Amino acid sequence: MRCDTMWHDARMATMAGDGLGIVEDALIASDQGVILYAGPHADAPTFEPDERVACGGRWITPGLIDCHTHLVHGGNRANEWAMRLAGASYEEIAQAGGGIVSTMKATRAASEDALVAAALPRLDALIAEGVTTVEIKSGYGLDTESEARMLRAARRLESERAVAVTTTFLGAHALPPEFAGDADGYVAMVADEMLPAIAREGLADAVDAFCEGIGFTPAQTGRIFAAAARAGLPVKLHAEQLSNQQGAALAARHDALSADHLEHLDGEGIAAMAKAGTVATLLPGAYYFMRETKLPPVEALRAAGVPIALATDCNPGTSPLTSVLLVMNMGATLFGLTVEECLTGVTRNAARALGQAGVIGTIEAGKRCDLAIWNVEEPAELVYRMGLNPLHARIWSGR
Amino acid sequence: MRCDTMWHDARMATMAGDGLGIVEDALIASDQGVILYAGPHADAPTFEPDERVACGGRWITPGLIDCHTHLVHGGNRANEWAMRLAGASYEEIAQAGGGIVSTMKATRAASEDALVAAALPRLDALIAEGVTTVEIKSGYGLDTESEARMLRAARRLESERAVAVTTTFLGAHALPPEFAGDADGYVAMVADEMLPAIAREGLADAVDAFCEGIGFTPAQTGRIFAAAARAGLPVKLHAEQLSNQQGAALAARHDALSADHLEHLDGEGIAAMAKAGTVATLLPGAYYFMRETKLPPVEALRAAGVPIALATDCNPGTSPLTSVLLVMNMGATLFGLTVEECLTGVTRNAARALGQAGVIGTIEAGKRCDLAIWNVEEPAELVYRMGLNPLHARIWSGR
Ligand SMILES: [Zn+2]
Ligand SMILES: [Zn+2]
Repeated sequence: MRCDTMWHDARMATMAGDGLGIVEDALIASDQGVILYAGPHADAPTFEPDERVACGGRWITPGLIDCHTHLVHGGNRANEWAMRLAGASYEEIAQAGGGIVSTMKATRAASEDALVAAALPRLDALIAEGVTTVEIKSGYGLDTESEARMLRAARRLESERAVAVTTTFLGAHALPPEFAGDADGYVAMVADEMLPAIAREGLADAVDAFCEGIGFTPAQTGRIFAAAARAGLPVKLHAEQLSNQQGAALAARHDALSADHLEHLDGEGIAAMAKAGTVATLLPGAYYFMRETKLPPVEALRAAGVPIALATDCNPGTSPLTSVLLVMNMGATLFGLTVEECLTGVTRNAARALGQAGVIGTIEAGKRCDLAIWNVEEPAELVYRMGLNPLHARIWSGR
Repeated sequence: MRCDTMWHDARMATMAGDGLGIVEDALIASDQGVILYAGPHADAPTFEPDERVACGGRWITPGLIDCHTHLVHGGNRANEWAMRLAGASYEEIAQAGGGIVSTMKATRAASEDALVAAALPRLDALIAEGVTTVEIKSGYGLDTESEARMLRAARRLESERAVAVTTTFLGAHALPPEFAGDADGYVAMVADEMLPAIAREGLADAVDAFCEGIGFTPAQTGRIFAAAARAGLPVKLHAEQLSNQQGAALAARHDALSADHLEHLDGEGIAAMAKAGTVATLLPGAYYFMRETKLPPVEALRAAGVPIALATDCNPGTSPLTSVLLVMNMGATLFGLTVEECLTGVTRNAARALGQAGVIGTIEAGKRCDLAIWNVEEPAELVYRMGLNPLHARIWSGR
């Protein structure tokens, strides 16, 4: 059988089925970006590839997926963080122009080109570790034009690099200063003007909100979700990060792809998520960086069979993190996930959290040929090591 | 004035003096590996360099120093760690051949070439982040020949890469199985046979021990220190990691270069270290990876004026970490160090912990020209970001 490319002399964790899907002597054949065959070399049909790649016994996994990021934004909050470490109060930081408003201002002031340029080093750090799909949220523009510009910049990254980008509209991320004291007014604008405009332009693949005591109420979140349904867009939710608002249960009732953070998730929320098939996306980088102590209910999520994903939450305020390998280590070290759960969390379950379980996340015939080839002796090394990048090669869409 | 190389159009944190030593429009001139001038461009003499490097306004810091590692070792304990995450007991792991004894066996079985080959990816990860000097300990051989082979492998890394290696003899790292029940007998052999043999061959720049309830007693540590003094070698100590053995005070009484870990350090130990000028080397990677909760007494160390260094502790059992940038982030996030303390900890104070304060650790005339040039807007970014490597160029010994 003809094909573009064939990889052989490899070991493989397909991540298909339930476990790691280990194949010791593996062969993968790809044509026009799609996997034709992935499995034991011994069982493979005879291929006539244009290119034949011997992998020297290396391990192949699916290309990694970062399913929750705020990668596109303006500004730099390193100095604000340095001030906080040196003992500055929140007042002093606010006076120095810090906080989320500083990111909003910098993002509003940035052109689409500037947003793309600022995001590229962060995207390149992910790509260097074998990431082939990245979700990117808006949420620092907080007006229609700036939110749209963030999402256009996110979409443009797909033409700047060999990577797939999925976009999420997060207009309900924070209350912009011009709506101070009028959260309902802002939510009405998000639901009735911004979201329909974003959807008309095809800029968003999903809709998200920040349901929290310091964010938006469940009622306000429900209005956003209703608007998403009218626009035909699936939803996700920043839920139960700092307190239990029962946002995850609300999201599950709206058939959310995922509920994210979840440190304060309760049993009712878990049951609702399990029933709806909503993915629990855990974000250990934010937990670590904010020195949180309340752990997400991993044991209960496992017991209920809720699929667990892991992501960087890359953002300037609470998780300036651009390493999916480190996210896996944090998932294991801080949250007690197993190696298998960590690897599943950045492949199969991350794909599901993006509504793309049929396209990416495992190495299976019919899926896009997104691969990462690693200089490791065992898949466990990808989770165990900290600060070592053993990527040998990365294949996006067959190339 | 003639010189090999001149760097200009740069901002610089010299790390000399007390703070970061910021110079906004900096010039560095180097000849035959030594800095001739480093300071404001406006104050510089006129140089006639063979090579002139315009840095495009980038930031320059001293080359980074990792002053506590176990970089050279055989074996791979990723799967042992995976078993533990999956709930295996220590007994089951021991039965599967895990634990420090597995590293000892793999190290004893490895040739010098094999130890060098295994260490290179770890060393390359450090080098990729601007590290120019690495300390490497023995301590997995636990017999004279294997300890010497580890240190020869460490020394050999200097000819494999453009990097300075300082070596530390850590024969008293653990009790080898053949001495089970006879720690005093092993310590006598370390002090009377191994250490003199290692010193005769010039393989060690310093001597270290693991003073701990599960390691060696203060009395045994004292015997090692006495042997080091007879051999003319300075000492360091793994002290107060899991319990307070008053090892740091013991080390300070022996004019130790550093006492390392120190989570359980008390006021007496701090006073002794301050008096002796012993550096406190904090190892947040081990604290993180082992999920420890007892923090080192940072505030008291500060108040006493004890210099604080930071290092990876790169080792397969408790800190499989090869990122000095991440160590700085952990120092700030987990231990509450300031950005300035973190940067000082991997430059000026790390040099001091190696007894090399006169040679490296700051950008000053007369010191070796070890530099790191960074794509950052502010030095704080080097500490703030996680998983992003902004190194633009690395200069070791002027090249
Ligand atoms: Zn987020
Ligand atoms: Zn150590």
